[in-house]
Amino acid sequence: MNQKMFDLGNNRSIIRELFEFSKTQKAKLGADKVYDFSIGNPSVPPHKMVNETLIKLMNENDPCFVHGYTSAQGDINVRESIANDLNKRFNTNYNKDMLYMTCGAAASLCITFKVITESTEDEIFALAPYFTEYKVFAEAAGATFRIVPAEMETFGINFSELKKMVNKNTKAIIVNSPNNPSGVVYSAQAIKELASFLLEKEKEYNHPIYIVCDEPYREIVYDGATVPHIPSFYHNTIVCYSYSKALSLPGERIGYILVPGSVTDSRNVYLACMGAGRAYGYVCAPSIFQKMIAECASLTSDMNEYAKNRDLLYNGLKKIGYSCVYPQGAFYLFVKALEDDSYAFMEKAKKYNIVLVPSDNFGVKGYVRLAYCVSSDTIINSMDAFEKLYKEYQK
Amino acid sequence: MNQKMFDLGNNRSIIRELFEFSKTQKAKLGADKVYDFSIGNPSVPPHKMVNETLIKLMNENDPCFVHGYTSAQGDINVRESIANDLNKRFNTNYNKDMLYMTCGAAASLCITFKVITESTEDEIFALAPYFTEYKVFAEAAGATFRIVPAEMETFGINFSELKKMVNKNTKAIIVNSPNNPSGVVYSAQAIKELASFLLEKEKEYNHPIYIVCDEPYREIVYDGATVPHIPSFYHNTIVCYSYSKALSLPGERIGYILVPGSVTDSRNVYLACMGAGRAYGYVCAPSIFQKMIAECASLTSDMNEYAKNRDLLYNGLKKIGYSCVYPQGAFYLFVKALEDDSYAFMEKAKKYNIVLVPSDNFGVKGYVRLAYCVSSDTIINSMDAFEKLYKEYQK
Repeated sequence: MNQKMFDLGNNRSIIRELFEFSKTQKAKLGADKVYDFSIGNPSVPPHKMVNETLIKLMNENDPCFVHGYTSAQGDINVRESIANDLNKRFNTNYNKDMLYMTCGAAASLCITFKVITESTEDEIFALAPYFTEYKVFAEAAGATFRIVPAEMETFGINFSELKKMVNKNTKAIIVNSPNNPSGVVYSAQAIKELASFLLEKEKEYNHPIYIVCDEPYREIVYDGATVPHIPSFYHNTIVCYSYSKALSLPGERIGYILVPGSVTDSRNVYLACMGAGRAYGYVCAPSIFQKMIAECASLTSDMNEYAKNRDLLYNGLKKIGYSCVYPQGAFYLFVKALEDDSYAFMEKAKKYNIVLVPSDNFGVKGYVRLAYCVSSDTIINSMDAFEKLYKEYQK
Repeated sequence: MNQKMFDLGNNRSIIRELFEFSKTQKAKLGADKVYDFSIGNPSVPPHKMVNETLIKLMNENDPCFVHGYTSAQGDINVRESIANDLNKRFNTNYNKDMLYMTCGAAASLCITFKVITESTEDEIFALAPYFTEYKVFAEAAGATFRIVPAEMETFGINFSELKKMVNKNTKAIIVNSPNNPSGVVYSAQAIKELASFLLEKEKEYNHPIYIVCDEPYREIVYDGATVPHIPSFYHNTIVCYSYSKALSLPGERIGYILVPGSVTDSRNVYLACMGAGRAYGYVCAPSIFQKMIAECASLTSDMNEYAKNRDLLYNGLKKIGYSCVYPQGAFYLFVKALEDDSYAFMEKAKKYNIVLVPSDNFGVKGYVRLAYCVSSDTIINSMDAFEKLYKEYQK
């Protein structure tokens, strides 16, 4: 048996352990007495057109078509519809042959990393704080995974560290903005600086250095912010997208890889994505969900709920005295722990039935992540508990 | 860029090329003038409970639940329901903790091969004729793929060759029965012989040699035949199942891995499956389809259609003079080509607008595969063309 696979399966993540704690406490005390901010599971329902379209597809079509295989790269209509939607929003020139439908962002990333990696010397970089699974996916593809330390003032890109670390083996930088866990959106200025640095390094090393955008939170932004469309700034950008968060469909596994025409040898990179998908057993993305997306590509869930929650949680915690990173997107708040050891802080929070995730899991020390994709009542009701927790540290 | 992934994506399969030929000819001559037997896409609609249950799930539940993440191993209700159904049918003692829900049989196989493989010396065997993608999946997992030559009389298991080939590096034998492409169902006697041989070899080499059952066609059998339930014959059996064929849902990607309690270190093997699924980016199997299967685990499409087609095609071709392997299951007929070179035969058949797949793709020479998951009219209307093709060889 493959020991590494066993370790990956056996190693229960801290989030999973917190989930169990939360379940036990809820059973004991009642669901409204536990303030579980541990899981990034969308709380806002999908746009009503999602279920309406799914039902219409079943009622009005041959079921062998609706549930049948699509081509490996995805149904032609869904790829055309997504290309059109992206072109409208980002003033681009994409077409269906640049889009490969996948079973969500995790699949998109695994496939992209496999395409990029030729040997174990190849390095894939994440910018801390980063989503833990990047390490698992990059190493499964055979790459070396490296972490660029966080810029602890604003949680933007830490250019001084990045510039020290990039070398001839660097093949890709993962950019996740809006960011899980910090909620930060990287500015156009930061993306420009990243692009110009990487262009220079591509010339120096004479091979592509990809930006791999993991952007499931692209549509979850506040204060009228927009997320810079990275392929418009940098030619070798591969976009990994998922409808999990924007359409509240995390369990259905539907997303895509976009290989823009600007990517070096873009057609070959696209074909290699199809090859890697094939090698990992991804026959096609779920058929009826592809066909639904063909109709719903431009829609999102109602993001006002998350905006309301963000304000409630951010303002509430600030008022008590907590230091928080102001989140411009996603549905996470990054809060400074009240002691250096974020695990110890997590344990103290549990005494007040507050469930939150220590930042060590995201490559940063001394913070915790609060997922505010919860009911507003959970946030409102949690404030007393947060105040008590705060006061414990003032003694 | 990873050259191997590019090759896998760029290498259009013969089936894909035939699909294009068929499309072009249909546009030129009309769909009813082309007899396309190339693709194993179910032609019988799903049981009506499938769509009814999907619609009911959406109409009667919180959409955040219906479309939300399940646990990585799958929703608890679906795993219980499948275990109960299997226990009823096979007189077994399975439970939910032996079942890991996957995105179909391809995913199940990729994950299982990854679990089994520790080094490139590890060998995974297929029994010819075999489904082409096994080679892709086994090599992606890092294993060495080896083919046991076909037993050309009955297309059963070629024990004399198998016994010569098994060695200390052999880690698994893939058993696909009912078989794609031959339609053969291995007898209980053959499975017994395989089990007793492998038990002996496990003792000799002192490590598990798994049977990996790929059985998406388990429920598609004729003449009252039953498919031997291999875990009841051999302890180290891992079952890879898909609802693609039995429920006519090939595009929706829903299936499972069963790791019976009899497997050596079964709990650890199960956990390693979860690890390999994680490493390949399989977050969970599509959520609403899991919940549907919880209600529909015991149902199948109407198999009478395939039985009718089998008789029409088998009897029709035999009457003309073709030699065919009598299919006891699946929806494929394996027919002896009328010349040694099955590619040349395929090309001649195309002149009569008959589209069929040369057997070389399945590790056997001199045969062609006909998928009879088509309309009965296609079969009836094709008989003249088959007769003309036959007569061409009598000149």
